[in-house]
Amino acid sequence: MTRQLANTTAPGVLARVRDRVEPLLRLAVDGIADERMRLVAGYQLGFNDADGNPSESGGKAIRPALALLSAEAVLGEPDSGIPGAVAIELVHNFSLLHDDVMDRDLERRHRPTGWVAFGEGLAILAGNALLTRAIEVLMDTGLAGRRSLPAVLEATQLLIGGQSRDLALEGRRDVTLDEVLAMEAGKTAALLSCASSVGALAAGAPDHVVAALASFGHELGIAFQLVDDVLGVVGDPARTGKSSSSDVRAGKCSAPIVAALADPSPAGRQLAQLFADGPPSTEADVVLATELIVAAGGVEWASREADARLDKAIRQLDGMGLVESAAADLAAVATYIVTRDR
Amino acid sequence: MTRQLANTTAPGVLARVRDRVEPLLRLAVDGIADERMRLVAGYQLGFNDADGNPSESGGKAIRPALALLSAEAVLGEPDSGIPGAVAIELVHNFSLLHDDVMDRDLERRHRPTGWVAFGEGLAILAGNALLTRAIEVLMDTGLAGRRSLPAVLEATQLLIGGQSRDLALEGRRDVTLDEVLAMEAGKTAALLSCASSVGALAAGAPDHVVAALASFGHELGIAFQLVDDVLGVVGDPARTGKSSSSDVRAGKCSAPIVAALADPSPAGRQLAQLFADGPPSTEADVVLATELIVAAGGVEWASREADARLDKAIRQLDGMGLVESAAADLAAVATYIVTRDR
Repeated sequence: MTRQLANTTAPGVLARVRDRVEPLLRLAVDGIADERMRLVAGYQLGFNDADGNPSESGGKAIRPALALLSAEAVLGEPDSGIPGAVAIELVHNFSLLHDDVMDRDLERRHRPTGWVAFGEGLAILAGNALLTRAIEVLMDTGLAGRRSLPAVLEATQLLIGGQSRDLALEGRRDVTLDEVLAMEAGKTAALLSCASSVGALAAGAPDHVVAALASFGHELGIAFQLVDDVLGVVGDPARTGKSSSSDVRAGKCSAPIVAALADPSPAGRQLAQLFADGPPSTEADVVLATELIVAAGGVEWASREADARLDKAIRQLDGMGLVESAAADLAAVATYIVTRDR
Repeated sequence: MTRQLANTTAPGVLARVRDRVEPLLRLAVDGIADERMRLVAGYQLGFNDADGNPSESGGKAIRPALALLSAEAVLGEPDSGIPGAVAIELVHNFSLLHDDVMDRDLERRHRPTGWVAFGEGLAILAGNALLTRAIEVLMDTGLAGRRSLPAVLEATQLLIGGQSRDLALEGRRDVTLDEVLAMEAGKTAALLSCASSVGALAAGAPDHVVAALASFGHELGIAFQLVDDVLGVVGDPARTGKSSSSDVRAGKCSAPIVAALADPSPAGRQLAQLFADGPPSTEADVVLATELIVAAGGVEWASREADARLDKAIRQLDGMGLVESAAADLAAVATYIVTRDR
């Protein structure tokens, strides 16, 4: 009884999907021929520690959950979403490995990032191995896999383009919110959009239904990234697994920071002065900058925008004739990941 | 008349293939959605300079030539080798972009490497975009492309594994020649093996013929890498486009260096002493180390092994019922690229 109830909540849905997809993800990683690449890929996925000993520290499997639910929502073959779920989680981890190299991030999921644990070269290579493996998985999983492949490739190109925009924004002080949102559309929303529709696509759902699910995922992705941006300013390190004020310290052009910099209030102007010569260099300046971003309304703006995007996402699910329980699960997962830790 | 004659020589074959494949490679790069990624990818392929102005400094298109010839050799549909030719050249350039980041190489084809021109992040991302584009090309080019895809994916994983072994060998002083050759099998031979067989594979040739062509490409790949290793020690910078003694300076575990280190002669022992504390740090030591590698027979060993591998490669073409002119072209191209610049 308790179990049945638990399955109707977002954590229950995520746990159910993780149980189903994780063995396949492990198989996919095991299928990487080179031993070192397997070690680094397994570390990134949370299957082993840096020495190869088994561990359990994987992510929440949000993307696989969306992929499976999107197949269930169109009454598709139950397994239609599986190839996309596995491939997208591999692509996601490929991009995390590479992003951490480029952003020089030190911690992820309360552990050293891949490049810190194995060096930059192996982290880049293992990312490549994961991307290649993702395509192999889709090629090896019949019709559903082959149907999913073009969508996964398109999302991957958008993801790469989004990260490239992110790098291009770095160091610029005249970044607009539109530019930030366009970057986040590629960097985060593209893959969530693909995940949210790939199961329906593979199940052969009509185009307009696939498009509505993709749109749900897009809006959810923007909301998700905005929350991430908020946590990068005011997140609790114990919960985020990153250092406090990490985006402030790194001088990132994230949405709350750009919104605060554009704010005409005294706090906004003081922040702009503080940032004029680059990211704050002392711990006192990081604390001050964080306070100013909050005072200038940057965090509030991003939070409100995230909520608006979440609402818009969930509205995409209406009138599409989706299986009600699956649509409810999609909405529950979306709400859960956007309201986390705030 | 002159033209016809020219086409029967290896440079003629390479020029003919380049003329045929380059427009498709340009189309493939143009199909990368993100503008910055297109710029960096086009720079890497030699289609534009770092500012986006048109340029002509592409590679020799060896892999595309092998791919097209492998289709011709089995009397395949003339275009069977095209998807593989384009995709493999994209994969090759993906790996060059990433390798130059990892190896901190500064020059390639007489120009700054991608990461020097655009920064490390954009170089990594553009490599990813090229890899993804390679798969897209194969998905978009009908039966021949789809037939080629698994082989290209397998070669890509081997390529990644080879580069990972290369990194693992770095800094070690007890590397064996077997380890070096195993690394080079992945790093260089895998993609040449795929290129040399992918056209025949896509044309639907029998397995044993595809395997013979793959074996030809494998041996050719080892020979090719051994020559590259020789040039990394004694190559002329004006012709190689790299600095002189580049592998010596970088302390690479390339075949001639490992062979020389293992040589019991006084030169070999002096070299081992010189390398005991890492790569030579002064220009005088680089010159001395280079002389010792030659004196200890490292360069001669690698050259002889390259010639033996070339012979073995060409023997794979016998008795397979290949179209004679195409087999002759394969042998001519193989001989040309292994005997270059020595």
